[in-house]
Amino acid sequence: MAQGLKVLSAALPQEVKLETRSYDLGAQRWHATGDTLPDADLESLKDHDAILLGAIGDPSVPSGVLERGLLLKLRFAFDHYVNLRPSKLFPNTPSPLAGRPDIDFVVVREGTEGPYVGNGGSMRTGTPDEVATEVSLNTAHGVERVVRDAYERASARPRKKLTLVHKNNVLVHAGHLWKNIFDRVGQEYPEVTTDYLHVDAATIFFVTQPERFDVIVTDNLFGDILTDLAAAVTGGIGLAASGNINPSGAFPSMFEPVHGSAPDIAGTGKADPTATILSVALLLSHLGYGDEAARIEAAVAADLAERDAAAPRTTDEIGDALAARVSG
Amino acid sequence: MAQGLKVLSAALPQEVKLETRSYDLGAQRWHATGDTLPDADLESLKDHDAILLGAIGDPSVPSGVLERGLLLKLRFAFDHYVNLRPSKLFPNTPSPLAGRPDIDFVVVREGTEGPYVGNGGSMRTGTPDEVATEVSLNTAHGVERVVRDAYERASARPRKKLTLVHKNNVLVHAGHLWKNIFDRVGQEYPEVTTDYLHVDAATIFFVTQPERFDVIVTDNLFGDILTDLAAAVTGGIGLAASGNINPSGAFPSMFEPVHGSAPDIAGTGKADPTATILSVALLLSHLGYGDEAARIEAAVAADLAERDAAAPRTTDEIGDALAARVSG
Ligand SMILES: CC(C)[C@H](C(=O)O)[C@@H](O)C(=O)O
Ligand SMILES: CC(C)[C@H](C(=O)O)[C@@H](O)C(=O)O
Repeated sequence: MAQGLKVLSAALPQEVKLETRSYDLGAQRWHATGDTLPDADLESLKDHDAILLGAIGDPSVPSGVLERGLLLKLRFAFDHYVNLRPSKLFPNTPSPLAGRPDIDFVVVREGTEGPYVGNGGSMRTGTPDEVATEVSLNTAHGVERVVRDAYERASARPRKKLTLVHKNNVLVHAGHLWKNIFDRVGQEYPEVTTDYLHVDAATIFFVTQPERFDVIVTDNLFGDILTDLAAAVTGGIGLAASGNINPSGAFPSMFEPVHGSAPDIAGTGKADPTATILSVALLLSHLGYGDEAARIEAAVAADLAERDAAAPRTTDEIGDALAARVSG
Repeated sequence: MAQGLKVLSAALPQEVKLETRSYDLGAQRWHATGDTLPDADLESLKDHDAILLGAIGDPSVPSGVLERGLLLKLRFAFDHYVNLRPSKLFPNTPSPLAGRPDIDFVVVREGTEGPYVGNGGSMRTGTPDEVATEVSLNTAHGVERVVRDAYERASARPRKKLTLVHKNNVLVHAGHLWKNIFDRVGQEYPEVTTDYLHVDAATIFFVTQPERFDVIVTDNLFGDILTDLAAAVTGGIGLAASGNINPSGAFPSMFEPVHGSAPDIAGTGKADPTATILSVALLLSHLGYGDEAARIEAAVAADLAERDAAAPRTTDEIGDALAARVSG
């Protein structure tokens, strides 16, 4: 997080006054107080232009507590319906895929519906007769707005290609809702080439032909799975940035690395801050600082090109190097 | 399918009399009659020791019709709760992953529950106010039997390692049911090393470290996604075999290639029958013909080792070559 803020300051024009406020959320606070995200913090967060969220998670906190009490709570409370996850194979970053050409696509993952709504339950819990359900909720309102956003993004890119990923041969109700809206909205974007893939087939193409993708739009759970896979085929989760965006501006958008908090190396100076720094680029671009965002991306590309695996740098050193490139 | 039966005959000992009956199911019949799997056929299928299912699917049939009317109907009617999908990197089969070592794991995918139950619906369908749901149903009965099967398989393998894959930080009700049963049943198998991964993290390891897996147990939808990915990292969906198994024997188990029907090359003699032939090996092994199954696998390994991409063979030629190796 410190490196992200360092690069953010370095990237902003002199005349822009950056005001930051830091919120102590996460494992430490939960242990001390039992709080994840109190209402007062949620209220005060609303006054900001954007949120930079540090990687969360700690093995000492039961699975789900921080994920649902903090991360998902923010995504839902601030209606972050566009979960934006670009995947790019930076020059000289080896992909684990043998001899792949350039990969450069972006996943537009729905962020406020689907199987993530927390609608489900169990009965006869803990007995041999337990039944547990999870309900995926999908609305025309929710699907149309994210599909429209994805068409806009596809239309603005050179290749203008949009792929819908779902599983409409099995999840027929949600699948048909997605496909019908995808087809209908598509009529307004005749310049965009469209495509549909089942999620299982999409994972095959991520490995065998990732260069075929430009923009992908998909539901919350499929997007979760596909973006980790996308990170894996493009040089690793250590480079994967993401934005939780509310395009209406009614609430602040939030930017975060896709990876977790790597508690095993926390504080050792070994963590690579690059995904957080690339998330700062997404934040700047969202706030209209496109040139500054581009400078950060170029700095990361240049830095990666010169990285020497035999001479690892500390978290601080990587942050300093990137800040220097960005301001230089 | 013809090649599968050819190799099946070649593999069986002389004294075993093979009786087969062929059922005309699929796209052609649906176009002619509107039927996918009539009750009479379903009834008569029950009298068999096993079913070999050809790859289904055709672009002329609306998405979902054959998947749900034929394939899923069989899996559910015959209670195929163990969907068994081995993944192996055969010698000399290049993986698209750069320089990977040996991969040899098996996914035990639950086959009769989860988001595949067809429980969901929509209201205000087709309007801007549509709401569509998909309900994942999970029972202790259904989870325990497949988890137990997975422990048995893990216990019988040299590495004795079992990984549960779910998403219990978000899908908490279903996730906790799976995790609790996984932990409880595990106490009966102290020799098995266990591990839990969220499905998104699992996709990363499939790409970066597939050799870490031995047996994986997971739900119906996650298993669908992971096994296509597994096929992609181990030389392709053209080699992926699967068994839909009812371990109780109350109904016949069913074996099928993981891939679809490749309608673009149907009848051209270009389709590779290897996944169907490996499914025959699973069928034989299920019926107690372990040696015969091993002979088919060895034949495939030897055949793959000698394949020359510059001299492609026809479907028939590959079937003949494998049958010759198996009987020879
Ligand atoms: C931590 C978890 C709840 C989260 C998700 O599933 O969305 C993470 O995997 C992500 O992709 O941001
Ligand atoms: C065709 C489809 C219904 C099926 C599934 O989703 O199970 C297939 O993808 C598979 O993996 O066997």
